[in-house]
Amino acid sequence: MNEFELIDVAIAELGSAAAGEWVRTGPGDDSAVTAVPPGMDLVSSVDALVGGVHFPLTAGAELIGYRALMVSASDLAAMGAAGGFALVALCMERADPDWLRKFARGLARAAAGAGLAVVGGNLARGPLSIALSVHGYVPARQALLRSGARAGDQVYVTGTLGAAAAAVARGGLDLCMTDTDLDDLSRRYFLPRARIAEGQVLRGFASSAIDLSDGLLQDLGHVCVASGVGVELESARIPVAAGATLEQALSGGDDYELCFTGRAAPPDLVTPAHRIGRVVREPGVRLDGRPASGGYQHFGA
Amino acid sequence: MNEFELIDVAIAELGSAAAGEWVRTGPGDDSAVTAVPPGMDLVSSVDALVGGVHFPLTAGAELIGYRALMVSASDLAAMGAAGGFALVALCMERADPDWLRKFARGLARAAAGAGLAVVGGNLARGPLSIALSVHGYVPARQALLRSGARAGDQVYVTGTLGAAAAAVARGGLDLCMTDTDLDDLSRRYFLPRARIAEGQVLRGFASSAIDLSDGLLQDLGHVCVASGVGVELESARIPVAAGATLEQALSGGDDYELCFTGRAAPPDLVTPAHRIGRVVREPGVRLDGRPASGGYQHFGA
Repeated sequence: MNEFELIDVAIAELGSAAAGEWVRTGPGDDSAVTAVPPGMDLVSSVDALVGGVHFPLTAGAELIGYRALMVSASDLAAMGAAGGFALVALCMERADPDWLRKFARGLARAAAGAGLAVVGGNLARGPLSIALSVHGYVPARQALLRSGARAGDQVYVTGTLGAAAAAVARGGLDLCMTDTDLDDLSRRYFLPRARIAEGQVLRGFASSAIDLSDGLLQDLGHVCVASGVGVELESARIPVAAGATLEQALSGGDDYELCFTGRAAPPDLVTPAHRIGRVVREPGVRLDGRPASGGYQHFGA
Repeated sequence: MNEFELIDVAIAELGSAAAGEWVRTGPGDDSAVTAVPPGMDLVSSVDALVGGVHFPLTAGAELIGYRALMVSASDLAAMGAAGGFALVALCMERADPDWLRKFARGLARAAAGAGLAVVGGNLARGPLSIALSVHGYVPARQALLRSGARAGDQVYVTGTLGAAAAAVARGGLDLCMTDTDLDDLSRRYFLPRARIAEGQVLRGFASSAIDLSDGLLQDLGHVCVASGVGVELESARIPVAAGATLEQALSGGDDYELCFTGRAAPPDLVTPAHRIGRVVREPGVRLDGRPASGGYQHFGA
C-alpha cells in the first residue's frame, strides 16, 4: 500500500471527525482551510511525541492516537480555548494500514471529546513519532496566560495528581492494547481528558493557568517565572490520586490537569478544583516552607 | 543545558522573527495566540521531516532549519495564502545549543522570506526530526484548491524543474554546512523559495494549483484525481533546470515550484510560468500522448 492509499485509509477512518462548523476544506489538499469565528483569537500549539520516549511503542494504536491528541489539546484548555482543529504529522516505519486505521480511530475519538476537527496531516516514513498541531478559539484578548498570577492569589489544581506517573512506575503500559486492558491507573495515562470545559469556565476567574504535563512543581515554576511571583504549597492539600504517592503527585508528569491561580475557584467546574497553596512575592516554589523542584526533563540538567 | 534553557536559546535567536502584526502572544506560554485578519480564512498545513530520510543528517543546522520552514510554507503558496505564522516541533538526540542556535537562525531567515512569524514550538528528545505547522491567510472562500481544473484549461509551472533532484543524485549534500558550500544545484535543494508572491497573483487566475514536492507527474496526478480530469503534457515544453535531466524534472521531488491550471497565466509573476500542456476530459497524466507516472513515494508501492 503506498503513501496515498494509506492517507485514504486514515481519512476514511476519521469520517465526520474531519468536518466541523468552521472547516471549509478538510484533509486532501495542500492545506486545510478553516474560518475563524468572528471576534475570536486563534490559540495554537504544537507537540511531538516520539515512540519509546513519550509513549510505549508496542501499546495499542488506538490508545496511542487518543492520547496524542488529548495531550496536545490540553495546551488549548490551559489557555481557555475551545473548538478549533488539529493537524497530525505521523512518521511510521512501514506501511501498516491496520495500525493506521486504529490510530485514526483513536484520534477521532479524542477529537470528538476535545471538540476539535482533524482537518489535515502528513504521513512519512521514519521512526514512529507523532506531531500534533492543535488550534482553538478564545474571545479576543481573553486567553489565559501564565503571566497573570499576583501575590495574594490562591493556587488551585483540578482533579487528582500522580496516577499517570504511578502507572508508568508500575510498568506494563507497553502491554495495553485496548480500553479493556486498562485499570484505574493506566486509564489515567492512556485516556487523559483535556480540561477544555474547565478552561472555558476559568476565563474571567483565573489570573493565570497552565496544564500539568511535566509535573506540578516544575510547571508551577514556569508560572512563577512568567508572573514574577512565588508560591507556597501545602503538602497536606495536594490531591494525591488513589494508588499514587505524594512524590508522584508533585513531580510525576502526564497528569494534564489544570493548575490555576485566582482570588477564588469558580464554583461550577466539571472537575472539582482543590486549593493547594497561595501566591507570594518571594520568587520560587516552596512546599511546607521549603524550596521544592523536580519534574520531567527532556534533556538531563 | 536543560530543555527550558535550550528553548530560551532558540527564542533568543528567533528575535523579531517571533513577532508579527497579528501575533498577540508568541513563544513561551502553553500556546501561541494570534488574531486572524478580518474577512480572511485560515490556511493550515503540517509537515514532518526526518533526519536521514528527508534531509541529510550532517548538513549545516541553518540550512536544515531554512529548508524545513520553506518546504512547509510552500503548501501555503499552493493555496494562494500569505502572512501568518509557524509552529516548530523539534526532536533532537542531545542538548546541543550551538546546533539549535543555527537551526533557529535558519528558521528565522526562511520565516522572514516567507512572511511568517515563528510563534511557538516544542522541544523533545528523540531521533532528529522536525515537524512544522504553517498557517497563512486568504480572502474568505478564495483559497486555490486542487479540484478546480477543467478540460480546456492550460497547464503551467513556475520556474524550472529537476535541480534539487539532480543535487540529490549527485550526492555530497551531507557535506554542505553553510551557504558558501552551495552551488547552483545544491542551492535549489537547501534554499528553495516558497512561491508565496506567485500564489497571491494566481488567486482569480488559476482554476487549480499544487506545489511540486514529490515530482511533477505524481503531483499533477493528484490534481487530475481531485478535479476529475486528465492532462496532456509535452516533453519539449518542460522547463528542465540547467544540470538536470528531463526524468529528474518529471519525477524528481523537492522542486517547490507551483503547478497550476487556467485559461491563461497571469502576466506579472515574479517567477515566470511556462505552459507545459493542457487539461483534457480523459483521466490520467500523459506525456507526448503516452501514460506517464512516477515520483517520490514515502512507502514503496
